[in-house]
Amino acid sequence: MAGSGFGTIFRITTWGESHGKALGVVIDGCPAGLALKEADINKYMERRRPNAGKMSTKRKEPDEAEILSGVWDGRTTGTPISIIIRNEDAHSSDYSGLWDVYRPGHADFGFDAKYGFRDARGGGRSSGRETSARVAAGAVALKLLSEIGISVHAEVESIGAYPAKSIEAEELITGLRKEGDSTGSTVFCCASGVPAGLGDPVFEKLDARLSSAIFSIGAVKAVEIGDGCAVSLARGSANNDPFRIKDGKIVTAGNHAGGILGGISNGSEILIRAYFKPTPSISVPQDTVRKDGTETVITVKGRHDPVIGPRAAVVVECMTGLVLADSLLLNMSSRVDRIRSFYGASDSSEDAGQ
Amino acid sequence: MAGSGFGTIFRITTWGESHGKALGVVIDGCPAGLALKEADINKYMERRRPNAGKMSTKRKEPDEAEILSGVWDGRTTGTPISIIIRNEDAHSSDYSGLWDVYRPGHADFGFDAKYGFRDARGGGRSSGRETSARVAAGAVALKLLSEIGISVHAEVESIGAYPAKSIEAEELITGLRKEGDSTGSTVFCCASGVPAGLGDPVFEKLDARLSSAIFSIGAVKAVEIGDGCAVSLARGSANNDPFRIKDGKIVTAGNHAGGILGGISNGSEILIRAYFKPTPSISVPQDTVRKDGTETVITVKGRHDPVIGPRAAVVVECMTGLVLADSLLLNMSSRVDRIRSFYGASDSSEDAGQ
Amino acid sequence: MAGSGFGTIFRITTWGESHGKALGVVIDGCPAGLALKEADINKYMERRRPNAGKMSTKRKEPDEAEILSGVWDGRTTGTPISIIIRNEDAHSSDYSGLWDVYRPGHADFGFDAKYGFRDARGGGRSSGRETSARVAAGAVALKLLSEIGISVHAEVESIGAYPAKSIEAEELITGLRKEGDSTGSTVFCCASGVPAGLGDPVFEKLDARLSSAIFSIGAVKAVEIGDGCAVSLARGSANNDPFRIKDGKIVTAGNHAGGILGGISNGSEILIRAYFKPTPSISVPQDTVRKDGTETVITVKGRHDPVIGPRAAVVVECMTGLVLADSLLLNMSSRVDRIRSFYGASDSSEDAGQ
Amino acid sequence: MAGSGFGTIFRITTWGESHGKALGVVIDGCPAGLALKEADINKYMERRRPNAGKMSTKRKEPDEAEILSGVWDGRTTGTPISIIIRNEDAHSSDYSGLWDVYRPGHADFGFDAKYGFRDARGGGRSSGRETSARVAAGAVALKLLSEIGISVHAEVESIGAYPAKSIEAEELITGLRKEGDSTGSTVFCCASGVPAGLGDPVFEKLDARLSSAIFSIGAVKAVEIGDGCAVSLARGSANNDPFRIKDGKIVTAGNHAGGILGGISNGSEILIRAYFKPTPSISVPQDTVRKDGTETVITVKGRHDPVIGPRAAVVVECMTGLVLADSLLLNMSSRVDRIRSFYGASDSSEDAGQ
Repeated sequence: MAGSGFGTIFRITTWGESHGKALGVVIDGCPAGLALKEADINKYMERRRPNAGKMSTKRKEPDEAEILSGVWDGRTTGTPISIIIRNEDAHSSDYSGLWDVYRPGHADFGFDAKYGFRDARGGGRSSGRETSARVAAGAVALKLLSEIGISVHAEVESIGAYPAKSIEAEELITGLRKEGDSTGSTVFCCASGVPAGLGDPVFEKLDARLSSAIFSIGAVKAVEIGDGCAVSLARGSANNDPFRIKDGKIVTAGNHAGGILGGISNGSEILIRAYFKPTPSISVPQDTVRKDGTETVITVKGRHDPVIGPRAAVVVECMTGLVLADSLLLNMSSRVDRIRSFYGASDSSEDAGQ
Repeated sequence: MAGSGFGTIFRITTWGESHGKALGVVIDGCPAGLALKEADINKYMERRRPNAGKMSTKRKEPDEAEILSGVWDGRTTGTPISIIIRNEDAHSSDYSGLWDVYRPGHADFGFDAKYGFRDARGGGRSSGRETSARVAAGAVALKLLSEIGISVHAEVESIGAYPAKSIEAEELITGLRKEGDSTGSTVFCCASGVPAGLGDPVFEKLDARLSSAIFSIGAVKAVEIGDGCAVSLARGSANNDPFRIKDGKIVTAGNHAGGILGGISNGSEILIRAYFKPTPSISVPQDTVRKDGTETVITVKGRHDPVIGPRAAVVVECMTGLVLADSLLLNMSSRVDRIRSFYGASDSSEDAGQ
Repeated sequence: MAGSGFGTIFRITTWGESHGKALGVVIDGCPAGLALKEADINKYMERRRPNAGKMSTKRKEPDEAEILSGVWDGRTTGTPISIIIRNEDAHSSDYSGLWDVYRPGHADFGFDAKYGFRDARGGGRSSGRETSARVAAGAVALKLLSEIGISVHAEVESIGAYPAKSIEAEELITGLRKEGDSTGSTVFCCASGVPAGLGDPVFEKLDARLSSAIFSIGAVKAVEIGDGCAVSLARGSANNDPFRIKDGKIVTAGNHAGGILGGISNGSEILIRAYFKPTPSISVPQDTVRKDGTETVITVKGRHDPVIGPRAAVVVECMTGLVLADSLLLNMSSRVDRIRSFYGASDSSEDAGQ
Repeated sequence: MAGSGFGTIFRITTWGESHGKALGVVIDGCPAGLALKEADINKYMERRRPNAGKMSTKRKEPDEAEILSGVWDGRTTGTPISIIIRNEDAHSSDYSGLWDVYRPGHADFGFDAKYGFRDARGGGRSSGRETSARVAAGAVALKLLSEIGISVHAEVESIGAYPAKSIEAEELITGLRKEGDSTGSTVFCCASGVPAGLGDPVFEKLDARLSSAIFSIGAVKAVEIGDGCAVSLARGSANNDPFRIKDGKIVTAGNHAGGILGGISNGSEILIRAYFKPTPSISVPQDTVRKDGTETVITVKGRHDPVIGPRAAVVVECMTGLVLADSLLLNMSSRVDRIRSFYGASDSSEDAGQ
């Protein structure tokens, strides 16, 4: 099935495996005239890259994005933007024993059930490295949004039971690295400046599209909009955000809803939280089975982050950007009066109901 | 935008407003030869209906589904199945004051921002009643799944802070009804018999599709798969489900993952939890604004459930069924050997790599 | 497969069989605020109806379209417009012997190969009557186009070897009716007022979308744009339409291209010709086979037009309207400057290439 | 709009401009396990390449396709296959005067109307060179089809008024090259071994999908299936293909229908004819206008084929292959009995109608 595409008007298709020649993305439907250069993309790529700190993998990933098409003289042309990220530093040998064994917490078994076999080098298509292509595309979406005054920001919020930036979190990571174990985390994302009216009332609710985008990031096991799970405990009288007039504009007092009501943005900040499971690749011995149906014990080698959130935050930000950009373009055709005005036609419509 | 369609091969399109002539759904892509009669659908419609109990609305909704096409001689023909549910008992007068005022917690304001105006009778397209069409379609999907040995069941799990079936929950509902207030709830859904291999590795992950389906139900503010939010606190060594051999088959010991790894089903039960906000329609006075930008106080009249979960459970079940049915059909084309066998072609392929 | 849907933003889904309870269409994505009443649709339905003349079937088809949703107070609301056309006067008995025999020139055999069986009453889903739902939807699309100053008109051009309105054509029809035979025909369609820029450069060329729309009408075996087949004999110097300035606007001198160059409209009239095969249902005896693999001779009874073009013209017009309406909406997101202006954002973009 | 994608399950997205760094395609949804190497693709690329003969352009295009992902150990993995074709030998200077002038017969004016500006080097995205990416993708589709016993072949049929392989055609080409003029042509395509049942009854008719695919090739102005235009002159009694039994199979005697009835394949050969206009790039002086609205005369320089058909034949073949591959996969989910058998479920269905 064609499951590597995302979006309707601003549509991306990613490709590439962790240890193949390259990864990349084709953006089809980016409007013409957007100023775009590789540096605009690479500043996001950098955020996905393992940093020098203690929380992330030691694998070296230059991850330089190169634009192959769709940009001319510094501006997008309206035709597909193809971006390539070449693979280097691929230690396939780390995966040499993994072809016929199923790593717990990974897609290996499902992959074989679906396709009959798999490229086991580095998780192949299911590697976290696949997200680099999304970040490249998301960077373009975020640049487009910034033209309309929309900004999106995501960052890691908690690591295990601790705020992400605490000393306790840092100590936890150091300890896990020694033990060869891992921990879960959360990422919080906020989009500001989103006009009211984005999203559609039924299946293409803005929150439905966002949740799908966030759940499509490997290791996400829960998504909240606004108050999220806590709404199940709240009363309506407390959970409803009253409308107010502020500076002549309609706004909400409070934002339990996280900026979306009935699937449509209401002009308040859009608030999203993603819950990431602990990195499944751990060097602690685990029971598992081989493809041939025999049981075994596995110890996963290789350079793996003991926590996913820190590097995944930019992916959450980019996926959010991709949904908002597409929704922004889809929303342009919602009203006949605006379509008439767009095409310079006068209002020749008969009076309704007569 | 065309946001009333859902699915790729098993694709549905719903239509209709709460207080219009009727609601309905067209199912396009249901395979031919499925035994189907209206009673198969109406037993699900009944579960969505307000019961005589204390938890649900007093509005009378016969909600009889009628099949208009696509079934002949008791079997589906492969052509579109059109199902209609006529509206009766529509008290539009309850909504007479709502045209120019925005109910807190509702889509009213977003609707006007998007479309310029709205059909305010009963929430129009954003009414919970819209889900009756999904249930009709979901019933057909669930019947198809049962042919392959897949069963899905959802029920309300908690109401406010109490287990759904407790005396405390019942008392809470009774109290809220008197106060004109409402409470949140959760629904838990389990799908059994799902073969390993459904879902796709990147954007069309099975959990991404499921979360989008569940979030498309009004009032859902969080979705969990498997352990959900709790994974953010877990260690990898505890969260990974070891693989085992049981009765000659590969299974997981434990199911923290909720049956999905890397976006692909692993053969274990699929576990989903949805968090519903309190019913936004409450008779407690709330601050809000009018379309003309003046502030006011609103008291929402009409017959409204003080809690959404009890009637929404069957909607969760049906949306899950729709995703699984579509994924099941999409998965049939994943392997060349199976395609050859399907079309009765012999294996004439050259040896790979030579 | 979900093959009953058409369009991306302005998307329709048709349903219903020739001799079932009803046929219908759901229009999802029609912009809000379009003045619409049933009479707007029924004037097109009337053109599809068999007239009193000699060229069309004697079957009585009232074909009154009823709007079930999506219109409120005389205007479209932006939510799905469901239209139903009830079946009356269905002489299923005319088809009583056709369940197990394959009519030459019909889809019967393919249907059985695909679905295993079929609803043989009146051709079921493959009946020409299916087009009534398209006409209902097309009428709405054409009304939307008229708001932007676009008009579309199609009519039958030739019947057999004669101009459609000639005495020879009328005599041919009279003779064929007596013989129980049929003849082919052509329909010509012209769209005026289409702005330059509709359609996309590669797979979604405007002519590709139009040809698909026209070929989706049963019995069409060829489609031409502009000079069509004749271009294969022409020289480039004669076939290229020179650009000129007229009244300050860029126009083409001549219109060999039929208003489309490289898949994009150029502002000239869009010219389409469709070639219809003779009605396959004829009462002349024909060799054929039964489902069980035995040979037989068939004589198709029932009231059938001896020529398809006269009633199909409005269907060509409506399918053209559906493509243009969708293309018009899709085109709104092609340029960043226009998107900025649409959303009221100022041009904050950095200088390109710096 | 996202117009560079094609197909539903076997879905491709092409990218790249004539004179950019590279062109390419991503194939998403190719089943796993197909033996594939670059030579399989490059033998098709070679057929698109200008040959040494007199009929084609003198431009040198090595057009070597390189596979970047989706193939491992000589077999497709089920994940996206990314193919890149690097550009060399790009004489952008030939186009130096074309930025602000609209070439007659080209998309230049429509491009500017749509996007505001364009990459004028070599026609940019609208160059015939864009088809190289389709050929790369089509080669994979054709290899998949060959696994099921389906073969497709297309070749140029006529050049101007002459059969393609005649001395007259060769002389015509020689003369046109001297004059700087061009001529039209036709390409004929035949697909054998296509099982009955492919295609869907309404909008996704197999002929509708094929016509869209063929019309999406630049310069096509007409498409015929089977007898095509000639059916408008035929009688039903002559045009209907009788069914017969041959070697125990149901076949048609004659093939006026070109293998498709009611949009569904009937097991006979699928016959398609495409009409190409003369190459619009000619060195004969032509009247035209500049972007600024002034009139001028243009003489298009550069190396251009005086006839499109010879090199386009392989593109027609590949587009046909892409449609058939997708239709083959879509058709797998049409019947419940086959789905049950595919998933190894027993027939547990209740008796219909009871």
